[in-house]
Amino acid sequence: MDKILRIDMGAAGGPRTTTSSIGDYAGLGGRGLTSAIVSGEVPPLCHPLGGENKLVIAPGLLSGTAGAMTGRLSIGTKSPLTGGIKEANSGGQAAQVLARLGYAAIVIEGKPGDDTLYKVFINKDGVRITPDNSLKKLPNYDLVERMKEEFGNKIACISIGPAGEMKMSAASIAVTDMELRPTRHAGRGGVGAVMGAKGIKVIVLDDEGMGMRTAADPEKFKEANKRFVDGLRKHPVTGQGLPAYGTNVLTNILNEAGGYPTYNFKQGRFDGAHQISGETQAETENQRGGAGSATHGCHRGCVIRCSGTYYDKDGHYLTKQPEYETVWAHGGNCGICDLDAIAKLDFMDDNYGLDTIEMGVTIGVAMEAGLIKFGDAEGAIRLMEEVGKGTPLGRILGNGAAVTGKVFGVERVPVVKGQGLPAYDPRAVQGIGVTYATSPMGADHTAGYAVTANILKVGGSVDPLKPEGQIALSRDLQIATAAIDSTGMCLFIAFALLDQPDTFQAMLDMINAFHGLNMTAEDVVALGKKILSMERNFNARAGFTAQHDRLPRFFKTEAIAPHNVTFDVKDEDLDQVFNW
Amino acid sequence: MDKILRIDMGAAGGPRTTTSSIGDYAGLGGRGLTSAIVSGEVPPLCHPLGGENKLVIAPGLLSGTAGAMTGRLSIGTKSPLTGGIKEANSGGQAAQVLARLGYAAIVIEGKPGDDTLYKVFINKDGVRITPDNSLKKLPNYDLVERMKEEFGNKIACISIGPAGEMKMSAASIAVTDMELRPTRHAGRGGVGAVMGAKGIKVIVLDDEGMGMRTAADPEKFKEANKRFVDGLRKHPVTGQGLPAYGTNVLTNILNEAGGYPTYNFKQGRFDGAHQISGETQAETENQRGGAGSATHGCHRGCVIRCSGTYYDKDGHYLTKQPEYETVWAHGGNCGICDLDAIAKLDFMDDNYGLDTIEMGVTIGVAMEAGLIKFGDAEGAIRLMEEVGKGTPLGRILGNGAAVTGKVFGVERVPVVKGQGLPAYDPRAVQGIGVTYATSPMGADHTAGYAVTANILKVGGSVDPLKPEGQIALSRDLQIATAAIDSTGMCLFIAFALLDQPDTFQAMLDMINAFHGLNMTAEDVVALGKKILSMERNFNARAGFTAQHDRLPRFFKTEAIAPHNVTFDVKDEDLDQVFNW
Repeated sequence: MDKILRIDMGAAGGPRTTTSSIGDYAGLGGRGLTSAIVSGEVPPLCHPLGGENKLVIAPGLLSGTAGAMTGRLSIGTKSPLTGGIKEANSGGQAAQVLARLGYAAIVIEGKPGDDTLYKVFINKDGVRITPDNSLKKLPNYDLVERMKEEFGNKIACISIGPAGEMKMSAASIAVTDMELRPTRHAGRGGVGAVMGAKGIKVIVLDDEGMGMRTAADPEKFKEANKRFVDGLRKHPVTGQGLPAYGTNVLTNILNEAGGYPTYNFKQGRFDGAHQISGETQAETENQRGGAGSATHGCHRGCVIRCSGTYYDKDGHYLTKQPEYETVWAHGGNCGICDLDAIAKLDFMDDNYGLDTIEMGVTIGVAMEAGLIKFGDAEGAIRLMEEVGKGTPLGRILGNGAAVTGKVFGVERVPVVKGQGLPAYDPRAVQGIGVTYATSPMGADHTAGYAVTANILKVGGSVDPLKPEGQIALSRDLQIATAAIDSTGMCLFIAFALLDQPDTFQAMLDMINAFHGLNMTAEDVVALGKKILSMERNFNARAGFTAQHDRLPRFFKTEAIAPHNVTFDVKDEDLDQVFNW
Repeated sequence: MDKILRIDMGAAGGPRTTTSSIGDYAGLGGRGLTSAIVSGEVPPLCHPLGGENKLVIAPGLLSGTAGAMTGRLSIGTKSPLTGGIKEANSGGQAAQVLARLGYAAIVIEGKPGDDTLYKVFINKDGVRITPDNSLKKLPNYDLVERMKEEFGNKIACISIGPAGEMKMSAASIAVTDMELRPTRHAGRGGVGAVMGAKGIKVIVLDDEGMGMRTAADPEKFKEANKRFVDGLRKHPVTGQGLPAYGTNVLTNILNEAGGYPTYNFKQGRFDGAHQISGETQAETENQRGGAGSATHGCHRGCVIRCSGTYYDKDGHYLTKQPEYETVWAHGGNCGICDLDAIAKLDFMDDNYGLDTIEMGVTIGVAMEAGLIKFGDAEGAIRLMEEVGKGTPLGRILGNGAAVTGKVFGVERVPVVKGQGLPAYDPRAVQGIGVTYATSPMGADHTAGYAVTANILKVGGSVDPLKPEGQIALSRDLQIATAAIDSTGMCLFIAFALLDQPDTFQAMLDMINAFHGLNMTAEDVVALGKKILSMERNFNARAGFTAQHDRLPRFFKTEAIAPHNVTFDVKDEDLDQVFNW
């Protein structure tokens, strides 16, 4: 994994590939590598859909190894949604396969002169780029079926649906899971639109003939991996909560805490929460049975296994088990308490290639604008169909909540840096509010998941309703997350890492044993800071200031029930998050 | 003119008015006053459509006097289009009438709790605010007819059309002319959307019983005014070019100079220019005859008289004589060379209440996106009908070029700070490019009209194709403009002021004689700098940086025919414009 593949889609005569050594980027992986390339090579004021922007796809430092949880793929670019730097990451199989093929990153540059659509095939023999306009407007599920017919069953696909082709700012990039379904997505920030602008429909990866990556010290690596896995299994969140109910275990917890944003962030509790909770979801899935409904992972090497399959009443596949953020975005945020409708919306998101969070927040804003009523599940499905078809209304919605709010003159639009807020109200979970406001990514829960200490009492305890302690909490988590996002490891390991120093040490030992390094905890912190600094540097050159590190004003002026709180972290304190 | 009327539209129990002395704002008028109030009172990060924003309507320091050219009305707010401070100004009768009623400004604050629509009537006896939902969605022409029925023929109206009610970011505020037609508009920046958000459809002004404002030294004022008028009459632009052909005299000039943006800024010359030039327009108007087609002014006291009336082939009123910017925006920029179609589009803009520049640029972007073909006049009219109806497509377009580009994934979107570029290509007229890039208003030709020295050889001569000298040119003009925009005087006086020191002195003498002051040329410069500083200070607090003082990158990378030039003013030089 020491080479970088560059694909120039704007080359005269058609796409041209060059493969080079990782060079100056050595030692970086995942988000560390994507952010270094974007920050170092992309002109900050370029148009996100133009030839000067780059799309960087990078597995993590441990992807493709026998290490557990190492299947995350980072995708970086200048975001069409935020206008700033973006790293969106995804589970699925592609990171492992790409790493085994030896690539630290694929960097897609330039832009074709016409609207020809290309597919890229990469295996041990090299790279083949072929125009294939027959793929145009194929939804992701159909596309993957076509790729299976053409390339067989042992592939992994990275693809866009119609939304990406239409260059919508909510367009995601899909990654296939272990069952070769396009259910895992680099969702946020419109990365799919950039892939669409580059004219690439799908990257098909086949690692046949390539072995597992081998560690510098295989024995030490194996032993550290075992300690790491044991640690994950013994922690209540990673060993019990997530496997039993998936991420949707959070619905009842956040609702109980009064931090479950309901009706476009109007209240913190939803009457219909129990109808869409993880517990109800798991019970429904169990009742409906069918092969594969059991809890399982999204990539080989996952030991948390928070995923599953969602069938309809007749036992037909509807979608993968919808995640908490999706159930919230399409559910409580829109006043919808029908799990089957939510599953249908999740499938549509995956199939058209859209970020479920952005789409749910957008539909909430459309409801606020009066296009349909809160709670209207059929209406929400109709709106999503418009997006898939690319009607004018669909294009508005497919460009996210900020654009939708602007087009319909809505004042209450929950976005930061143009990106929709996820499933935790920043007034009742003030630590996550700090992350939403200050992350270089725009409103992003994963960038510094303060729900841990605020609500779950993982990694300490910080009162969620008060500003005290939230800056330090968000800062530490943002630093740690930037580092973890570079390893290729699933962020969910953080629950165990935060509470169990020996599990953190085991992860460090894995990295050191694999790469022959002697990294300490301080080195991990330094790496996280370095990545955040690169990202903030890019954003500053793109015109972002402290004024962009703010929540929309209504979070300061509208108190939220049941706790009757506003977001009370002071602006001048927000400005200290990166002042380390 | 020493009082400020504040209308709180969000007051419990309905709108509440308070009238106070001008107090700390004494000595300011027009743009100086609107920018002082917006910068001093509006939270820079508030939502433009929220209750915290204010809409400030102010006549100039000399409005309502017997002085010539003093009919400009300034309207200031936080712009829904740019997110920054905005002053849009308009001709028409309202400034004179408002000044005679004694108001230095109307400040509209707060926001009603429901969607009731109000009309405001102001006369010598005071202010009356009445809910009137029967006015909903009335276009401006019909609305004014209704107001005439209700309040008689001696009124002036300040109103919004359906676009403002729909809170579109391209919505203008209309002001009636001497014939009580809603043909004069504070066009730019979506000021109409803010009026719509405040729930005010129309402000009707009646100055019956109020005399002309009287000068501190009436004789000196009268004498200075005479010198001023003589100066305007002897200058070739204000005395001959503008009266003979209106502002559209510029079409042939800019086309000849290769600076006429054609097909969404793809080339600098338009084959069809002669079909839509001021000369052709004047000939057409003369042929079609009809009362009122002769050149005339937009307000009493105008001695330039650059306006006229445009009739159809059968002698029926189509619209007022379309301005150069409108003819360009709907014409050359869209590849349309049909004056009747352009006149129809101008009427639709005025009637729906839309900025003609923003709409023309937006339709150009829609053409670039492939919605209709360049040159398709019928298609452009259809698109405008969608805007008037508020269909999803209409709402996209009505929110301007930046939103339209984003929704349809277009890369070549000619905007600065979200506002569409006017009718001079910044590559072939580099001085105006400096103004577009750096004005606190977003891309705005009037903010520092460097076309003077670049093309017209007024106020000196600076090679339009080279970066040399453009910074100083734009700086000086931006400073002078901010000051002139405070007097209530029409900016067109600048042509004579730049070339004729005695005409500049006459204007200064008018101000001094009227207000009993001793202002010097240096004081005028200081006033201009003070206004620009306030505006830039607001924008900085709203998150604007040097990175926002840039043209879209394609002006640097795409050379334009016929001169094969790119915009070559360096970024670091742009950053020196306000470094005085």
